[in-house]
Amino acid sequence: MKSDLDALMQDKNLDAILVLGDAEYNPPMTYLVGGGHVAHAVLIKKLNEEPLLFCNAMERDEAAKSGLKTMPLRRAPITEFIANTAELFESYGVSSGRVGVYGKTDLSEALVLLESLRKAFPNVKYFGESPEDSIFMRAMETKDNAEVERIRRMGKVTTEVVSMVADYLTTRNVNSDEVLLNDDGTPLTIKEVKGKIALWLAERGAVDVEGCVFAIGRDAGIPHSMGNPTDLLRLGQTIVFDIFPGEAGGGYFYDFTRTWSLGYATPEAQKLYDEVKSVYDKVIENIDLNVKFKDYQQLVCEEFNKNGHKTPMHTEGVLTDGYVHSLGHGLGLNVHERPSSRHTDGDDNILKAGVVVTIEPGLYYPEKGMGVRVEDSYWVRPDGQLEKLAEYPYDFVLPMKKWKKK
Amino acid sequence: MKSDLDALMQDKNLDAILVLGDAEYNPPMTYLVGGGHVAHAVLIKKLNEEPLLFCNAMERDEAAKSGLKTMPLRRAPITEFIANTAELFESYGVSSGRVGVYGKTDLSEALVLLESLRKAFPNVKYFGESPEDSIFMRAMETKDNAEVERIRRMGKVTTEVVSMVADYLTTRNVNSDEVLLNDDGTPLTIKEVKGKIALWLAERGAVDVEGCVFAIGRDAGIPHSMGNPTDLLRLGQTIVFDIFPGEAGGGYFYDFTRTWSLGYATPEAQKLYDEVKSVYDKVIENIDLNVKFKDYQQLVCEEFNKNGHKTPMHTEGVLTDGYVHSLGHGLGLNVHERPSSRHTDGDDNILKAGVVVTIEPGLYYPEKGMGVRVEDSYWVRPDGQLEKLAEYPYDFVLPMKKWKKK
Repeated sequence: MKSDLDALMQDKNLDAILVLGDAEYNPPMTYLVGGGHVAHAVLIKKLNEEPLLFCNAMERDEAAKSGLKTMPLRRAPITEFIANTAELFESYGVSSGRVGVYGKTDLSEALVLLESLRKAFPNVKYFGESPEDSIFMRAMETKDNAEVERIRRMGKVTTEVVSMVADYLTTRNVNSDEVLLNDDGTPLTIKEVKGKIALWLAERGAVDVEGCVFAIGRDAGIPHSMGNPTDLLRLGQTIVFDIFPGEAGGGYFYDFTRTWSLGYATPEAQKLYDEVKSVYDKVIENIDLNVKFKDYQQLVCEEFNKNGHKTPMHTEGVLTDGYVHSLGHGLGLNVHERPSSRHTDGDDNILKAGVVVTIEPGLYYPEKGMGVRVEDSYWVRPDGQLEKLAEYPYDFVLPMKKWKKK
Repeated sequence: MKSDLDALMQDKNLDAILVLGDAEYNPPMTYLVGGGHVAHAVLIKKLNEEPLLFCNAMERDEAAKSGLKTMPLRRAPITEFIANTAELFESYGVSSGRVGVYGKTDLSEALVLLESLRKAFPNVKYFGESPEDSIFMRAMETKDNAEVERIRRMGKVTTEVVSMVADYLTTRNVNSDEVLLNDDGTPLTIKEVKGKIALWLAERGAVDVEGCVFAIGRDAGIPHSMGNPTDLLRLGQTIVFDIFPGEAGGGYFYDFTRTWSLGYATPEAQKLYDEVKSVYDKVIENIDLNVKFKDYQQLVCEEFNKNGHKTPMHTEGVLTDGYVHSLGHGLGLNVHERPSSRHTDGDDNILKAGVVVTIEPGLYYPEKGMGVRVEDSYWVRPDGQLEKLAEYPYDFVLPMKKWKKK
C-alpha cells in the first residue's frame, strides 16, 4: 500500500525518488497524483516527506486536484526544463544521495535530463529498478479498500460487456456455412465484434487501451494473438475472449477471460475445455493465505503434464503449444503486477492479504485450430478469504437462439 | 519521413538505435513496427540496415505483421531479459559505437537494462535525445501520403463527433436558470457530455486516450483545464471544446478546437471570439511555404498585443490570462511534434512541404469566466498548398432549437 513507500525506500537505501511523465497512463505517477490531465510533470519525494509536484502552470487546476503541493515548471524548451528542474532539485535539497527514478515516459528525453542533473549534482546517484522488485511494484502489491472498490467496479463493467457480447453473438442468424451474420446478411467479423466491445466499454467509462483478445480457431491457440480482424465468427470453434479494460483516463484495470464455442462444441474442444476448467476449480479450492503463488503454478503444471500437455516446468525452451504461460499475476494500475506465478519467480511472490490476482490456466493447440483459457480476478481479503471480484457463468457452449444442430 | 532516418542517424553520428517498449502508444516503436499488440519489445537498427525486432515468442504472429525481421526474446524474469538482450546485441554486432535510445516505456526498467549493457559492452555509448530535436521527431516531421490519409480519417471522425455534440446540445430543453437538461429533466453535466464523446469516438475506431477539453466558464479560461465533470451546461457562456483523438490501438492523432456560446453570447465574449477568429484568418491568409512557424506566432502576438492582451512575447514570466500559449504544433503519432511555433524555438521549425500542423490562437480570461480558442489541423502539401484536413463551420453562437431569448 501507498503507506509502505517510505519503508520500502529505506530498505533500498533511497534518499529520494524522482517520478517523470504524465499523470495518466503512467502507473507510478498515477499512484501518487491520482490521475488527471497533468502532462510532463516532475515529482520529487524525499524519504519520510510528502511528494512535491512540478508541472506546467497552465495545468495548475488539474494538478491541484491531486492534493499534493504543486509548483510551476517551465516545460519547454528542454534547456529551460532541465535548468528549471535543476533549480527545483537545489531548492528542495536533493543535491546529494541516492535517487530512484520511475515513470512510463519518454526514455530518450529522460536520459538527457538525467545526464544534465548528473553534471549539476555530481553527488547524486540515480538508480533504475527492475519492475519485478521496484518500490512501486512492492507498494502497489497490496491494495486498500478504495483501490479494490475501483477494480471491482471495472469487474462489473467488464462482465456487463461480456454478457452483451454473448447476447449479441447468440442472437445472430447463421448461414449454411455456419458463419454468423450481421442484420444486413453480411458475415460478422472479429473487427465488428471488437467495435461493439469498445463502444460498450466507452458507455461505461472504461477503455481497453491495449485492445482485447477476441480470437477464433488457430488464433485462439496463440495466447497473445489479439484475433485477426477479418476472421469470421463460426459455430463449433473455440473463441478465446480475454478482456482487460481500465478506467478511462488511466487507472485501475480488470482482467477476465472466457472461452466459448457457439452452437455446439467438437468433442476434442469440449475435452480441452473440461481439462482447463477442472484445473481452474482445483486451484480455487486449494488456494490458501500466505502461500507462494508459484506453488499453484506447479500444481497446474503437474495436472496438465499428467494429461500429456507440455508445460513450462516440464519442457525446455520456448513453448508454442500446451500450457505455455503461467497461472496468473497481480492486477491494479498495471495489467501485470506483483505477485507473479512463474515457477522461476522469487519466493516472495506470496498470496498475502491485500493482493489482487488473476487465476487463468489455459491450453493451446494452434495447429489443431483451438485454444482454451478461463480467467477471473480475485482479491485476497484482509480476513484471508478469496473473493472473486466479478461473477460470470462458465458455460463453454453458448446455444444459438435461432439455430439448431441438425 | 521514415526514409530520412539513416541520414539523420549519420548526422548525429549514431552507429545504431535501440527502441524499447510496446508497439502501441509508443511513437518511435509504432513508427517502425506499425502498431499491433507487441509488448515489451526490443528493436535494434544499425545505420543503413533494416530494423530487427525482438519480442516474446507468444506475440510472434502480431509481430510478423510489422513486416520486420523478428526474433524471439525471453522477457521475464528481468535477469533473463537482460542476458537475452545482451546476446542479441552481441550476435547482431552492436558491441561498440554510439547508440541512440528511444521509446515511451518504463524508465526505471530501462535504466537497469542500460546499466547492464554498459557493463557487458563497455565500448558502446548510449545517448538520449531531446524530443525537440531527436532523429525520430525530425523524421516524423514530414508525412508521406499514407500518414496524411490516416490523419485525415481521424479528422473526419473528429468533426463528425463534434457535429453530433453540437446537435445534442442545441436540441436540449433549458430550465429557467438557462441550464441545459437531460431527457429526464436533470441538469446536463460536462461529465455526461464527455461520456457521449467517448462513445461516439469508440463507434468510429477512435479513442481520446488523453481525454478532451470540454470546459465552460472559468475553466474555459484555463487552456489546459479539461473541464470540471460536475459543471452544468449553461446558455451564454463560452465553451471551449478541444478534441484530439487518436486511432484506437495507438496511432495517428487529429487536433481540433471550437468555442461555442449556446443560445446567445455576451457582447464581451462575442468581441473576444471575433478577435481570435480574425487573427486566425489572418494567419491562414498569410501562411507561406518554407517560412519559420514562429514568424506567425510573432504576427499573432503583435495583433493581440495591439488590442491590449498579454502575450508570451510582450510579457515576462508565467502568463495566466491573455494569449498564454503558442500558435500551433506539428501533429502525427504524437499530439505535439515538430515543427513548433514558440518565439523561443529554433529557426529550423519551418512550414516545409510535408508537415502537418495545428493553427490554434486563443485568448483566456479565467477571472472573467471566459476563454476562446479556434483550431484546425493543416497539411502543407508537396505542391506548397495549405490543405485543411477536415472542414467544420466556425459559428460561435449555436442557436438552441427549443429555446428563444426573451
